[in-house]
Amino acid sequence: MRTDCHVCRSEGLSSRSQVLVSTGNRKVQAALYQIEGGALLAIDEAALSETAWKLLGVADGEVVHVSHAPAIESLASVRHRIYGHRLDAPAFAEIVGDVVAGRYSDVHLAAFLTASAALPLDDDETVDLTSAMIAVGDSLRWSAPLIIDKHCVGGLPGNRTTPIIVAIVAANGIVMPKTSSRAITSPAGTADTMETLAPVDLDIATLKRVVEQEGGCIAWGGAVHLSPADDRFVRIERELDVDTEGQLIASVLSKKVAAGSTHVVIDIPVGPTAKVRNSEAAERLAERMRLVASRFNLTTRCLLTDGTQPVGRGIGPALEALDVLAVLRNASDAPDDLRRRAVVLAGAALEIGGKAEAGQGAALALETLATGRAWSKFEAICQAQGGMRTPPVAAHVQPLTASRAGRVVHIDNRRLARLAKLAGAPDAKAAGVSMDIRIGDEVGRGEPLIHLHAETAAELSYALDYAERNPDMVTLTL
Amino acid sequence: MRTDCHVCRSEGLSSRSQVLVSTGNRKVQAALYQIEGGALLAIDEAALSETAWKLLGVADGEVVHVSHAPAIESLASVRHRIYGHRLDAPAFAEIVGDVVAGRYSDVHLAAFLTASAALPLDDDETVDLTSAMIAVGDSLRWSAPLIIDKHCVGGLPGNRTTPIIVAIVAANGIVMPKTSSRAITSPAGTADTMETLAPVDLDIATLKRVVEQEGGCIAWGGAVHLSPADDRFVRIERELDVDTEGQLIASVLSKKVAAGSTHVVIDIPVGPTAKVRNSEAAERLAERMRLVASRFNLTTRCLLTDGTQPVGRGIGPALEALDVLAVLRNASDAPDDLRRRAVVLAGAALEIGGKAEAGQGAALALETLATGRAWSKFEAICQAQGGMRTPPVAAHVQPLTASRAGRVVHIDNRRLARLAKLAGAPDAKAAGVSMDIRIGDEVGRGEPLIHLHAETAAELSYALDYAERNPDMVTLTL
Repeated sequence: MRTDCHVCRSEGLSSRSQVLVSTGNRKVQAALYQIEGGALLAIDEAALSETAWKLLGVADGEVVHVSHAPAIESLASVRHRIYGHRLDAPAFAEIVGDVVAGRYSDVHLAAFLTASAALPLDDDETVDLTSAMIAVGDSLRWSAPLIIDKHCVGGLPGNRTTPIIVAIVAANGIVMPKTSSRAITSPAGTADTMETLAPVDLDIATLKRVVEQEGGCIAWGGAVHLSPADDRFVRIERELDVDTEGQLIASVLSKKVAAGSTHVVIDIPVGPTAKVRNSEAAERLAERMRLVASRFNLTTRCLLTDGTQPVGRGIGPALEALDVLAVLRNASDAPDDLRRRAVVLAGAALEIGGKAEAGQGAALALETLATGRAWSKFEAICQAQGGMRTPPVAAHVQPLTASRAGRVVHIDNRRLARLAKLAGAPDAKAAGVSMDIRIGDEVGRGEPLIHLHAETAAELSYALDYAERNPDMVTLTL
Repeated sequence: MRTDCHVCRSEGLSSRSQVLVSTGNRKVQAALYQIEGGALLAIDEAALSETAWKLLGVADGEVVHVSHAPAIESLASVRHRIYGHRLDAPAFAEIVGDVVAGRYSDVHLAAFLTASAALPLDDDETVDLTSAMIAVGDSLRWSAPLIIDKHCVGGLPGNRTTPIIVAIVAANGIVMPKTSSRAITSPAGTADTMETLAPVDLDIATLKRVVEQEGGCIAWGGAVHLSPADDRFVRIERELDVDTEGQLIASVLSKKVAAGSTHVVIDIPVGPTAKVRNSEAAERLAERMRLVASRFNLTTRCLLTDGTQPVGRGIGPALEALDVLAVLRNASDAPDDLRRRAVVLAGAALEIGGKAEAGQGAALALETLATGRAWSKFEAICQAQGGMRTPPVAAHVQPLTASRAGRVVHIDNRRLARLAKLAGAPDAKAAGVSMDIRIGDEVGRGEPLIHLHAETAAELSYALDYAERNPDMVTLTL
């Protein structure tokens, strides 16, 4: 709105004021931004974000009412928490309700999350926050008595075990309705990868039909809003780069309980650059996760896994899908690290699901892969989701070669992910990076270290420019 | 920028990304907002805020470069503080430097302030934060060995003692270069009120000349940036409604030290709806203020004053100026509460400034008023600031009367302030509310409770509408 607008003047609104925009019986809370002068807006006009247009359901030229946003009562609880007092269940319910209704500004969200980090949430608070987050989201219910899920704490590039695990677990008769996310800052999310193999954008009815028919699915979670509060918290946590155990547990468990799961296998990669740095921290997280989960009748099995280097060869949706296919099809060149991780995690799922004795799950998982039963189940799931697809192949593929001989001592995952994104991933499905080497490999001068994959010449050129400026993404010994 | 812009795509920028916008050797950090489609912007165009236009010094059509904002190193200290570790002087210096450079988003600012509230700043940290805040701002230096300032902790409506105190103190030969703020959320700031009596928008050279000539000034602080970090913190503190002792002390003292003050009188209104709720809290604040101030060779005298009801009669710039004039001119109807407060505070200043023995300051202040010496000094200061003005009078004045007889038992300050703003204050200088009653007064049916003052009929009508919907702003006994 304009600074000289009569509403801004009489209401005393200034830039970044929280305002309530309403029309008929619809309303939306928004942050006000102001402009001076009349080039874009008339004095009695307001411009809206795309989201506000949709929520209000207004058309160009319609009348809206703008006033100060009402006082947010639950902020008293946030202030209470800032000053070191613990909160009870009703307080968390009010806070989470206001967060989901969009009443909290970024400043309010940051204060709540910071306060929950400065004085960490205790077990009761974590349970109450989890309950509150479940209450404001959608819930899935299943007829089967045992529903398995899996979760990986803190992404590891290329760690696409999910499609393999679902196939193995469902092939053994356990129900596993898996929903996954798309990439937010990474070159591919599980949903992006899976989308190159089958449709993933399933509504709830389709998702239920697929699971009833095949005992499993690998769908995008966007159509079901299992934990809408978490979506809001995550954006701020990322901006702050603050991640606390209590919030992490509430985030993971709220989604699993809302998804109707009874048992969850949790992959905790441990490594110096992973989210969990050492095994003590991982053990503590696992113990708290177990404790809080038990309050929701949810059984968890946490597995500490190697978080020191990327998994598989591909970075990017289609390239990662090729790794998944190679493992499921028992290809001779299938990445062994991806296979081993999937087998260990699926084995744990088979054990807590009662399909294997303790210690025998991995063997059953490996057998399910080796006999082709996992591959058949995966094909059937893809078919049920709308038909199996062949991952696209990039039009432009170019190797980056070693300028001299040596042994690979370091791989910079962060910059490789950036390179894959510059090549077009995840929007360009075929784009990304494939690794020709792993740490410890010996390479000769002129041998390929990685291959760049791009769908357009412009994107290939962006990526090549970046690679030229960053020759040390792969470090060799002298 | 547009979501489909090639820079957004290749850099992986999304809405609210922090970006660095640069051209030539100028750069500014900003939050990115994105639009879809091409009605407003071409694919390679960016629109800028007014502030960014000015900081970059660009003209329409010039080329700017947009990239991810560089990593903010000092956020590691903020995270460190969130997790319960105390910070040292270099850490505060880095944080405050980045804040003033505009590198912190609202989320970062909120996290820093919340962390300093959850684990309150200790005395060393408060000193280090104060030093850091002084270092990034302008500083004033004076030739006089003794420079007095005053400050009021937490506004009380109508508490316009400042112009009276400056006149009394300067009339007694103590140098008092006072800078004040304009209203932010209230119907008038001291600078708004003073502006109806003389120009206040003085540059540093003029301010120095006025003070050298008259020993005092009452100027707007906007032309001197004594504590630019505080300006950023205050906005977020207001949004959070979180106010901690450490931040408050650093905010007040950073400005006083930067202004070159050697002695400061601090007014701490105490009352159930004031910022400081009881005398124990006020005593503790005073003691910490004294301790931190002493580290900067600054002498403080804190006075606990009555914070239970508004001071004087007027609410709004010109109406408050009339109260100030009445006191300075010894008018028979001058508001006695305003006079008494000004005398007590000016008396304390005269005592710490060595012009009166302990316990004799108030008598000297009263005498300075009664003999007209304060009024002469005030006239001279106004003259030096550019010429004395007569406060404007509103074109529309209307009484709100008692619907029945009774005794006034409660006055709702918050809603009276809102009423004054709806009538046009502080932009419309003559607008506001004047009080015809105080708590304890007996009124007859049909007698005026307050008068509304507005410059336009439309604003009067806004205010009358509000008054009609809020008949209980003044509560009478049955």
